Amino acid sequence: MALIVQKFGGSSVANAERVFNVADIVTKTYAEGNSVVVVVSAQGDTTDDLIEKAQEINPQASKREMDMLLTAGEQISASLLAMAIEKLGYPVVSLLGWQAGFHTSSAYGSARIKRVIPDRIKKELDKKNIVIVTGFQGINRYDDMTTLGRGGSDTSAVAIAAVMNADLCQIYTDVEGVFTADPRKVKNARKLSVISYDEMLELASLGAQVLNNRSVEMAKKYNIQLEVLSSLTRAKGTIVKEAKQMEKMMISGVAKDEKVARISIIGVPDKPGLAFKIFSKLAAKNVNVDIILQSIGRNGTKDISFTVDQQNLKDTIELLSAYVELIGASSVVYDENVAKVSVVGAGMETHPGVAADMFEALYEANINITMISTSEIKISVLISKEDADKAVAVIHDKFFSEAIHA
Amino acid sequence: MALIVQKFGGSSVANAERVFNVADIVTKTYAEGNSVVVVVSAQGDTTDDLIEKAQEINPQASKREMDMLLTAGEQISASLLAMAIEKLGYPVVSLLGWQAGFHTSSAYGSARIKRVIPDRIKKELDKKNIVIVTGFQGINRYDDMTTLGRGGSDTSAVAIAAVMNADLCQIYTDVEGVFTADPRKVKNARKLSVISYDEMLELASLGAQVLNNRSVEMAKKYNIQLEVLSSLTRAKGTIVKEAKQMEKMMISGVAKDEKVARISIIGVPDKPGLAFKIFSKLAAKNVNVDIILQSIGRNGTKDISFTVDQQNLKDTIELLSAYVELIGASSVVYDENVAKVSVVGAGMETHPGVAADMFEALYEANINITMISTSEIKISVLISKEDADKAVAVIHDKFFSEAIHA
Repeated sequence: MALIVQKFGGSSVANAERVFNVADIVTKTYAEGNSVVVVVSAQGDTTDDLIEKAQEINPQASKREMDMLLTAGEQISASLLAMAIEKLGYPVVSLLGWQAGFHTSSAYGSARIKRVIPDRIKKELDKKNIVIVTGFQGINRYDDMTTLGRGGSDTSAVAIAAVMNADLCQIYTDVEGVFTADPRKVKNARKLSVISYDEMLELASLGAQVLNNRSVEMAKKYNIQLEVLSSLTRAKGTIVKEAKQMEKMMISGVAKDEKVARISIIGVPDKPGLAFKIFSKLAAKNVNVDIILQSIGRNGTKDISFTVDQQNLKDTIELLSAYVELIGASSVVYDENVAKVSVVGAGMETHPGVAADMFEALYEANINITMISTSEIKISVLISKEDADKAVAVIHDKFFSEAIHA
Repeated sequence: MALIVQKFGGSSVANAERVFNVADIVTKTYAEGNSVVVVVSAQGDTTDDLIEKAQEINPQASKREMDMLLTAGEQISASLLAMAIEKLGYPVVSLLGWQAGFHTSSAYGSARIKRVIPDRIKKELDKKNIVIVTGFQGINRYDDMTTLGRGGSDTSAVAIAAVMNADLCQIYTDVEGVFTADPRKVKNARKLSVISYDEMLELASLGAQVLNNRSVEMAKKYNIQLEVLSSLTRAKGTIVKEAKQMEKMMISGVAKDEKVARISIIGVPDKPGLAFKIFSKLAAKNVNVDIILQSIGRNGTKDISFTVDQQNLKDTIELLSAYVELIGASSVVYDENVAKVSVVGAGMETHPGVAADMFEALYEANINITMISTSEIKISVLISKEDADKAVAVIHDKFFSEAIHA
């Protein structure tokens, strides 16, 4: 007798057959005596189809109206899933974000959950109903529909789990769990049975694309145990929980991110405070800067390099081009032909030599490293994009073929 | 400076081009200095597509979940129309039924509007916004989504017009107004410039399918002036208003209804109260009975015939078959190969001879009349279905080629 929150992504409910597959998972969980709250995304390509309809009419449509449009997607999938569960003979009710008590900030398109008031969810659970909630959406203080941004359904699920103090939050997706590397690319990639929140956060931000980062942050904050698993194979997935509860692995995974670009500001005068000014300016524009490398000053100038998401590249270059002259630097150059490859592991801090092993693997494969960044549980290197897959393979081989788990 | 409510049906917003056509009509009305509230149906076949999705999953889906599904249709069309209006540079906001204050009964699928609390609509109009409201929907006392049934968007529009005391409620559709007969069938059919609520009600119930009956009833009750017109041709339409305000026409139109069936109960004992019992029983099952004919009793029995909608035929036959024996009648027979043809006109009551002219026209065309029913403003006859179009044509000719308007 537990309270379980189950979240299903768009591919899990893409068509009638898949909807019934999900209904089967949900009702089996319910039939075992659990209370079940289901969070569902829009079906397959619904969101993209709706965006296309909007683009056809007004590519500059307001975010308010975009949210009004897009929230219809989950409304459709939630009611269809409810109908499938009815068909299987179980009591069920679907609720929209606002009915489920999701109150968000007013930032249409990327709203943050401010609070969840789960009165209606509780009432329906008391009535022994399976409760389906539309993910990705809520209402703001004007009573207008808002969306949480892409991947927001994960966050919706964790928020319900947090406020309801759920025993488990299962994130069903189209992969079987969290792997030591991308299983489509690295043949020896292993599924992890458990991983810490911090490692998951590093992997997610590195492009592993298994879980939305905000959802992991929220799970960590409220100590909600997550399980990432596949709705199709139904194999046991990967548990994400607090690191101290488990044996620390030295390395939990190898990830790559090809959607980065490197920007260099050449000839920055060697005066204190300029780097601070540059990065404050970028922060004010919400540009997230990752690896930063500053050359040693020579002739009274230095070069500052850093990486940004490719989607921020154009804006960042425009911003800096105007600024470069003002601070007396000579030019701004950029390179999109780069990839970031990282190893992540909570045990890394107590196991020296991880960086050395990683660099050795790259050296043996003749892969050149342009930039390096390290944190307590992560080492990232910037390399040429064409080397990325090979780099992941050789690094994965280095750590996992030798089975050097702590 | 007037407050105008404009309602657009699904065909008026079927694609991006049509959405911009509607945006043009709306913004022109607004630019003339009017406050504008727009009520919109789901795009083209959206509702049917959603119903098909539901059918694929569960043909016996609960009405609650069907309403949850279907209300997404207007949400999509309302937001897309708002985006088109934004594109034209006008201030606009779209509102869902619940945001616009539509409170309904709990009868999912065919809810009745209980009250409209237009606070939000007023607030948005005060801000000089064009306000778009999703038609066909509201919420019930459980805060659940409800729909008003097919054609409900007309009712939504009239309800807003009533509660806001609007100066005019325009119902844009794919026909240019109300005609003296179906213009696709009768070549001399004329568009009426004005018609009374009562005549419109008779025509609508007779299958003219221009305006939803509940919306006309509500317009009559609150004395809201309606205009039926085409969003495509934009020609002046037909005004629907109180009869006393206008010259009464003897005949306002000829209509046919082919979706009827005749049922006869044969050999009903000639005892008082049996007819009452039969029709009470049908009323209790919500079967609407139209023309009733009772034969003169012979041998202590009589036959009772009446017409029902074809969609009620099966249920009615089942109901009566069980009941016939109980009351001592001999059998129940039915005929679906019938059509009802009617002339409607508020001036009829003061102009004798309309019935005679109608029957003469049918006689000259060699069309046999099976049943007759009359009211103050309507005469209906039941004939064979194959004669229906011809009957409409000859009756229309009789009254309109001779220009015998009062």
